[in-house]
Amino acid sequence: MILLFTDFGQSGPYLGQMRLSIERHAPGVPVVDLISDLPAFNARASAYLLAALNSEIPPGSVLLGVVDPGVGTDSRQAVVMRVADRWYVGPGNGLFSIVAQQHTPTQVWQITWRPSRLSDSFHGRDLFAPVAAMLARGDEVPGDPVDTASVGPQDWPDDLAEVIYLDGFGNAMTGMRASGLSERQELEVRGHRIRPARTFSEVAPGEGFWYANGCGLVEIAVNQGNAGEQFGLETGDSVVL
Amino acid sequence: MILLFTDFGQSGPYLGQMRLSIERHAPGVPVVDLISDLPAFNARASAYLLAALNSEIPPGSVLLGVVDPGVGTDSRQAVVMRVADRWYVGPGNGLFSIVAQQHTPTQVWQITWRPSRLSDSFHGRDLFAPVAAMLARGDEVPGDPVDTASVGPQDWPDDLAEVIYLDGFGNAMTGMRASGLSERQELEVRGHRIRPARTFSEVAPGEGFWYANGCGLVEIAVNQGNAGEQFGLETGDSVVL
Amino acid sequence: MILLFTDFGQSGPYLGQMRLSIERHAPGVPVVDLISDLPAFNARASAYLLAALNSEIPPGSVLLGVVDPGVGTDSRQAVVMRVADRWYVGPGNGLFSIVAQQHTPTQVWQITWRPSRLSDSFHGRDLFAPVAAMLARGDEVPGDPVDTASVGPQDWPDDLAEVIYLDGFGNAMTGMRASGLSERQELEVRGHRIRPARTFSEVAPGEGFWYANGCGLVEIAVNQGNAGEQFGLETGDSVVL
Repeated sequence: MILLFTDFGQSGPYLGQMRLSIERHAPGVPVVDLISDLPAFNARASAYLLAALNSEIPPGSVLLGVVDPGVGTDSRQAVVMRVADRWYVGPGNGLFSIVAQQHTPTQVWQITWRPSRLSDSFHGRDLFAPVAAMLARGDEVPGDPVDTASVGPQDWPDDLAEVIYLDGFGNAMTGMRASGLSERQELEVRGHRIRPARTFSEVAPGEGFWYANGCGLVEIAVNQGNAGEQFGLETGDSVVL
Repeated sequence: MILLFTDFGQSGPYLGQMRLSIERHAPGVPVVDLISDLPAFNARASAYLLAALNSEIPPGSVLLGVVDPGVGTDSRQAVVMRVADRWYVGPGNGLFSIVAQQHTPTQVWQITWRPSRLSDSFHGRDLFAPVAAMLARGDEVPGDPVDTASVGPQDWPDDLAEVIYLDGFGNAMTGMRASGLSERQELEVRGHRIRPARTFSEVAPGEGFWYANGCGLVEIAVNQGNAGEQFGLETGDSVVL
Repeated sequence: MILLFTDFGQSGPYLGQMRLSIERHAPGVPVVDLISDLPAFNARASAYLLAALNSEIPPGSVLLGVVDPGVGTDSRQAVVMRVADRWYVGPGNGLFSIVAQQHTPTQVWQITWRPSRLSDSFHGRDLFAPVAAMLARGDEVPGDPVDTASVGPQDWPDDLAEVIYLDGFGNAMTGMRASGLSERQELEVRGHRIRPARTFSEVAPGEGFWYANGCGLVEIAVNQGNAGEQFGLETGDSVVL
């Protein structure tokens, strides 16, 4: 199984083109969109979300990640990472850094395979999708072993005290694991004081709170409301303990 | 086959997490998004849309419905319903009430199975998806038989004279089956008089009308226009005969 | 494999209903959304995008196209087209015209099969999806051979000097193949002069340019910006060489 983890958005032919490229190289392999609206070009924020979702990725499957701050980036940055029984294929821009930090030993390869036709702007379709397909069908890694540092920055914190993702309901995920916070910890974001609650129904309608969300991250929400709008939140906003 | 019927929206990892949960419990079972932008937290409106789509659900398949007005709701509300050759898994908040009203005898179970880890906020992934997977692979219902009333309110009308869904083009579905209305019946919504037509091309561009839509419901539309914007429609608006 | 190529948008039950209709007629056949937000009701613009994506369609598969300017259109317009090893099913309104112009010989049939129940407004589900399913499972074409002109207008230019699609990032695809332009060709759109570049990183942040996009079309973009907003672009805008 191949999981797509991208910032492509729902519109356009891009996800469809990725799927056709996978189908051409590994017919019949199932493909699931894990998420397609990661914060655009933001590999760092996306890295924390990936780490939070990591335990839900089925062992044996391939995570195909594309969040590319510089479209047309040097294709030598393309990497394959192996952690436990899972494969990761994508750019070496840090997208896989937090998973790598949390799980050692990790193996990393630089992708050396090149397609007969490599477009300047769509490495997801031309390079990453075929390599993900090769791994899904059990081929050797088409690349050379490299140092773990090749996945990108090594100095990102274990937990990121920032808003990393705003969902369609205005709930704001942060890059902090809830397990690291006291259940009575108060937060501050954009000058608003945010108290903890176990879940939505514990606070009054219209009231903000934070809770441990379904993937274990600290998430800021408003019962029956839109936290993003109510507090003016954006990806990258600092969260103060 | 499992059909997802949710108000999750297209964004975020939620639909992807549901699919991974299903794959873990029933590898290889096909999954289709029937709809993912049901009116948020509105089980009543969604119940009428489900009833209208019911005949299109393939016999033998499992409808996994999640429209949850109170996230963090009591998990004892989780039900399985069987109607003819189809399964329904979801909350006992009325989402399945209209299907149940239209089709008897109906069997209902309260779900007693619990996962080793049940999050407070994502019962769709943790409870409903695994149970749908069990049914799709032919397991026994993991629950106890209960009264049909366990699916939720029993006093909702057979047809709902309200706007229940606005689609991306601004067409407004109502909860009324077109088969119950005269072909010459005029409607009124938000003070606008709406005349009947067989289809879009029968009225002038920019003109509003109602017609029997593709799933048999009364739908208010504007030829080459956006009825939702033109008439200021919202989910819940009353329709007067 | 069946590819969906529609202007339905992501919302609503429409894509899901198409998939259920396909599943009913060809159980187990894989279905991929190639694109679902084609410019609404615009068969001409969509025809150029289809031609640009054509080489990515796997041989042996069926392209199911629905872009219908007149919902409730005469169902006698329904066609099947065969080009090389690929099938196309949809309306004879020009959606397949540019593919037909670029690839001869082409065979065309008028669909004569009718379902037991044909709604006035959803031929995609009731007529086109079942026919696509028949072809995917290897049945005979359920129709009569007709002249190639039955796919629609024969007088559309080989390249269309217009904006044909704006993606979610504001990049504006045109109907012109980049292979037909000099690499130094400047363009003008809405009074803005647009210079060529090989890719995003070749121009300064905030600067507009055109480049050969991933499917070979001339695309107008802004590095780290939104060309659609910056230049006020809309589908149909003329591009001047």
